Amino acid sequence: MSRLRVTYRIRAGGEAEARARAEGIAYEQTVEVPPDVVPPGRIRDEIVGRIEEMGPDGEGAWRAVISYHPDSCGDDIAQLLNVVFGNSSMQRGIRVLAVEPGETLRARHPGARFGIEGVRRLTGRLRGGLIAPVLKPQGLDPGALAEIAWRCALGGADIVKEDHGLGDLPSAPFRARVEAISAALDRAEAETGRRPLYFATLPGPWERIEDNIAFAKAAGATGLLVMPGLMSFALSARIARDDRLALPVMAHPSLTGGFVTDPAGGMDHGVIYGTLQRLSGADISVFPNVGGRFGFTAEECRSIAAACRDPEGPGQPILPSPGGGMSVDRAGEMRAMYGDDVVYLLGGSLLRAGERIGEEIARMRAALDAAG
Amino acid sequence: MSRLRVTYRIRAGGEAEARARAEGIAYEQTVEVPPDVVPPGRIRDEIVGRIEEMGPDGEGAWRAVISYHPDSCGDDIAQLLNVVFGNSSMQRGIRVLAVEPGETLRARHPGARFGIEGVRRLTGRLRGGLIAPVLKPQGLDPGALAEIAWRCALGGADIVKEDHGLGDLPSAPFRARVEAISAALDRAEAETGRRPLYFATLPGPWERIEDNIAFAKAAGATGLLVMPGLMSFALSARIARDDRLALPVMAHPSLTGGFVTDPAGGMDHGVIYGTLQRLSGADISVFPNVGGRFGFTAEECRSIAAACRDPEGPGQPILPSPGGGMSVDRAGEMRAMYGDDVVYLLGGSLLRAGERIGEEIARMRAALDAAG
Repeated sequence: MSRLRVTYRIRAGGEAEARARAEGIAYEQTVEVPPDVVPPGRIRDEIVGRIEEMGPDGEGAWRAVISYHPDSCGDDIAQLLNVVFGNSSMQRGIRVLAVEPGETLRARHPGARFGIEGVRRLTGRLRGGLIAPVLKPQGLDPGALAEIAWRCALGGADIVKEDHGLGDLPSAPFRARVEAISAALDRAEAETGRRPLYFATLPGPWERIEDNIAFAKAAGATGLLVMPGLMSFALSARIARDDRLALPVMAHPSLTGGFVTDPAGGMDHGVIYGTLQRLSGADISVFPNVGGRFGFTAEECRSIAAACRDPEGPGQPILPSPGGGMSVDRAGEMRAMYGDDVVYLLGGSLLRAGERIGEEIARMRAALDAAG
Repeated sequence: MSRLRVTYRIRAGGEAEARARAEGIAYEQTVEVPPDVVPPGRIRDEIVGRIEEMGPDGEGAWRAVISYHPDSCGDDIAQLLNVVFGNSSMQRGIRVLAVEPGETLRARHPGARFGIEGVRRLTGRLRGGLIAPVLKPQGLDPGALAEIAWRCALGGADIVKEDHGLGDLPSAPFRARVEAISAALDRAEAETGRRPLYFATLPGPWERIEDNIAFAKAAGATGLLVMPGLMSFALSARIARDDRLALPVMAHPSLTGGFVTDPAGGMDHGVIYGTLQRLSGADISVFPNVGGRFGFTAEECRSIAAACRDPEGPGQPILPSPGGGMSVDRAGEMRAMYGDDVVYLLGGSLLRAGERIGEEIARMRAALDAAG
């Protein structure tokens, strides 16, 4: 039995306060009662979180490693997150810097089914960055989205991914859309001999998710896009664990901003978009790219890519997938920054090419290969 | 057809930048492509978000009301949240101040099945604050938790609620625990003629949730505790909509801290713990009380209670449930602050009473009634 270890940065006015806050976390995240009412014996000795290390971490902040018994986490990724940060997330000035699940929880959460190697095998792209155009905008009908998918496939896309906001909306209902896009990719395959992976956006409501998963698989989707911030990391885990389904998971960061916009709270970028995605079974982790519409810094983006690919991390290494403001013009810069084991999302800028969208993808391929 | 209206506070260096950021949100939350590639016609005219109002909001901030077409949201609460704040949550300095779903989406999301009136009817407590002791700590076995439940019932608890961290852990596996606690409450009912509502904490993993819901109902739980921050607001909605199940939902705020610790980002407390809980179908919304271990201010707590009970809000008014640092000594203060339509969580302090826990609950009842 090895314990879960979580590193927190804690703001405090002095060391005594920092230690008191760390002890507060150790109780809050487990027994959630004051120390004097914790039953003696195993609960006090093993279940209450344990401060393993503690030291200063810059001005007004301390770093504490607190360990937890795996029995506090059970076999549910959501309960594991509850132990890592559930209630403490609501206290000001506590930030999760690292999560090391330990061997016991690693065995319970084996992570990605495919990982980098598996996704490469599925796409046939064994070397070089993977190119993933995004099917959008919301409001297009299934036929129009399918035509974009077909052009992208002809242009050499490795993956076509639906925009995360396509849901199950009147303009392009989930089932009609998946069927149309899948048929378009079959057609492209007949023409080129190659079919890109196709990640369908998995919509709710809750009651229809199981049917939607089964439908997507049967209709020819070869991957699923999920949004853990909206639908739980437990959904990624449910898909990743399903041997019969055996579909790769792409995780989109919608509504996870609360974890990263408060520099004194939340979680480090590498934890939420790297470690936790890996633990929950995602094969590809989408995040907002530096220099696009979002405020993520180059350092933050690099830390995400590093956490996704760290050979020591939980489960298999997975593919980081920067999106937002990505374009052919930035291919060299992006290649230099992220290297080869990466899924490049191409969104709005690509649509500008209209009917020549396939040529844009071919240009992106050439630019990436030239930079490699 | 009425549009969803979301009020954002946007940080900017000047009005032009504020307007550009507001326009950015209108595109980001819908079509997610640059304006020049939005197809003309219905997508440009109706699907792209529309800036309805805009004005200054203190130094360096602007307030913008942006409206969205209900067709962007479908009938899934998670997709509605995706439109409200999905990608924009990851941009710095954007805060959601209000969500007004409009009639179309109100009809799709009817909200709480029971609400304040329904929960009162179920408990038989038609007037005065409701008292809800929490069964904990994590690590106790089912028998020990059941004994606490029994004593609480004898003491006059209106609701007994499991700690949100009980999950499905080796110390007190979900099924054994629910059976033991339910049997203890049956015994109390035989002694007193009264059985408190019993909210069981609904654990994952995802694959077992449906079975766990059915088991809880069959075994005698009369409510379910869910954590939307861990398992999605869609789970609350799934339970609330189930006519055959017909169980009230208590929503716990675990892992929602990211929405509220960044004063320039995230969401106002009343939105996340009031409006969204109502929209998703929760009957009771738990939040950290002022003056306890958490940093919520009295004003923030009042805004949550007001949003839960606002007669103009979506669905029925629901019960705010402040927890953390609640005790008999604070009953008068709490009664003055929150009034009667409230569920008072009693946690760690109560356990100090040991075998006299029932007497503590009776004291709380007397203190609340005296303050009323």
